[in-house]
Amino acid sequence: MAANLKTIVSSATQTVEISRDGPTVIIGERINPTGRKVVLQALREGNFDIVRQDAKEQVAAGAAILDVNAGVPGADEPALLQQVMRAVMEVTDVPLCIDTANPKALEAALKSYRGKALVNSVNGEERSLNTVLPLVEEYGAAVIGLCMDDNGIPDTPEKRLAVADKIIERAARLGIDVANVIIDPLALTMGADSKAGWIALRTTELIVREFGVNISMGASNISFGMPDRRYINATFIAMAIHAGLTCPITNPLVPEVAIAILAADLCMGRDDYGMRWIQAYRQRAKETAAQA
Amino acid sequence: MAANLKTIVSSATQTVEISRDGPTVIIGERINPTGRKVVLQALREGNFDIVRQDAKEQVAAGAAILDVNAGVPGADEPALLQQVMRAVMEVTDVPLCIDTANPKALEAALKSYRGKALVNSVNGEERSLNTVLPLVEEYGAAVIGLCMDDNGIPDTPEKRLAVADKIIERAARLGIDVANVIIDPLALTMGADSKAGWIALRTTELIVREFGVNISMGASNISFGMPDRRYINATFIAMAIHAGLTCPITNPLVPEVAIAILAADLCMGRDDYGMRWIQAYRQRAKETAAQA
Repeated sequence: MAANLKTIVSSATQTVEISRDGPTVIIGERINPTGRKVVLQALREGNFDIVRQDAKEQVAAGAAILDVNAGVPGADEPALLQQVMRAVMEVTDVPLCIDTANPKALEAALKSYRGKALVNSVNGEERSLNTVLPLVEEYGAAVIGLCMDDNGIPDTPEKRLAVADKIIERAARLGIDVANVIIDPLALTMGADSKAGWIALRTTELIVREFGVNISMGASNISFGMPDRRYINATFIAMAIHAGLTCPITNPLVPEVAIAILAADLCMGRDDYGMRWIQAYRQRAKETAAQA
Repeated sequence: MAANLKTIVSSATQTVEISRDGPTVIIGERINPTGRKVVLQALREGNFDIVRQDAKEQVAAGAAILDVNAGVPGADEPALLQQVMRAVMEVTDVPLCIDTANPKALEAALKSYRGKALVNSVNGEERSLNTVLPLVEEYGAAVIGLCMDDNGIPDTPEKRLAVADKIIERAARLGIDVANVIIDPLALTMGADSKAGWIALRTTELIVREFGVNISMGASNISFGMPDRRYINATFIAMAIHAGLTCPITNPLVPEVAIAILAADLCMGRDDYGMRWIQAYRQRAKETAAQA
């Protein structure tokens, strides 16, 4: 068993610690035009009102970090990503997770960012390792490493562990502390493969046991194509927290998911006297009363 | 890692297999006067209508086995337990889990039961081991072993593992196959100890790794004294299934719990093509439509 590592990320004014000793850190997923036409259209028009709204709402619902993606086809991503980041930072102080596949956009974002950013993401492909990791090192960031490489996404937990090993080892060679590498075991769609959930859970266990690193996961795709997705996502995220997930990328505005994360922390003994659970309950009761 | 064991229980006409390869087996908890005044009063009056109703509803909601408890203070438990069992068997064919601390009631129940019963429970106390295990052996039953002994309930997973070890070893000495011993790690109230959930989860992992036995758990007490208990219970049961729980003793009439169990099986890769999930969704949709 490897010791549990702590990852620190920060904004100019806030520090967030990700670890297996503390509460689960929610990385809000919503500032992303992929699959959200209204956001896509607004970004195309240079309108950042939805971005500001998404930022405020997610933080109010419990996000401690916000993922920021400006992947608009045909747009000048380096410029657009910085505009989106600025819009977010106008309304909230939480640290950001810079989500781009464009090395120029990543470098520009890191250069302008005040604090220690989280980079989403590197993977085991040579091209990715060679472009992303040097930037992570240069700007002293933390990074999410996806368990895929030049051969695609491995179909067994053991092979995904090997990709995690490769990413951690390559980061270490550049002087990046293993505590600054967060691994995403990749939760694929169970609609396509009934074992997809199990593979992600098992991969998480193997990686935590071997390296003690923090684990992230885009935990909403798992239920794609299934009915009542929110229940599946809520249950899966709780099971993944038990397996070792520490910083899910998810939508805290889905009440079932936010509640499951709080309940999972409580059941893991990470909520002393149930104070966070009880506080969230009171907040829900107040909101329900206000709506009535 | 011990190999996963299979436990078979049966009624006169139905067989249920409990294992880590198949879906979670729900043991319905409701036929129990403890803390249910209306049941207590009905049993005192020799009225078994509620028992029949509870039996039918729990099976319809997904219980594969029914726990039957007739612990009415001052009553003739051997006689009452058999009456309750008969009432249940009038309306359903599922196997029963005979839940009594009274050795005479247990023996009479086992003598009259047709099939292979599950006995709830033995524990690590000498008196319990010496009275319950011989009956389990004589009647070829399976048994739930609670992780407590003459010194009470141990406060660490390692010490609870030692109690499980003792129960399994003592059963083996009498010729009871380890596959017929199901261990309950004991989920205590988190309201009294923030670590109670974690201890139960960790104990489950240790026991599964060491012995491969099936795991049961009364998974509703965990949230006692907390608000919004159903959410905590649903989340905890999903995490416990990930840890190795195979046959929770719970109330399938709580929708959040029943849904979490189905979702957990789906996420563990135990629901091929999501057929059970989709079928349950359709059933819920039908019931909602019928109510509208």
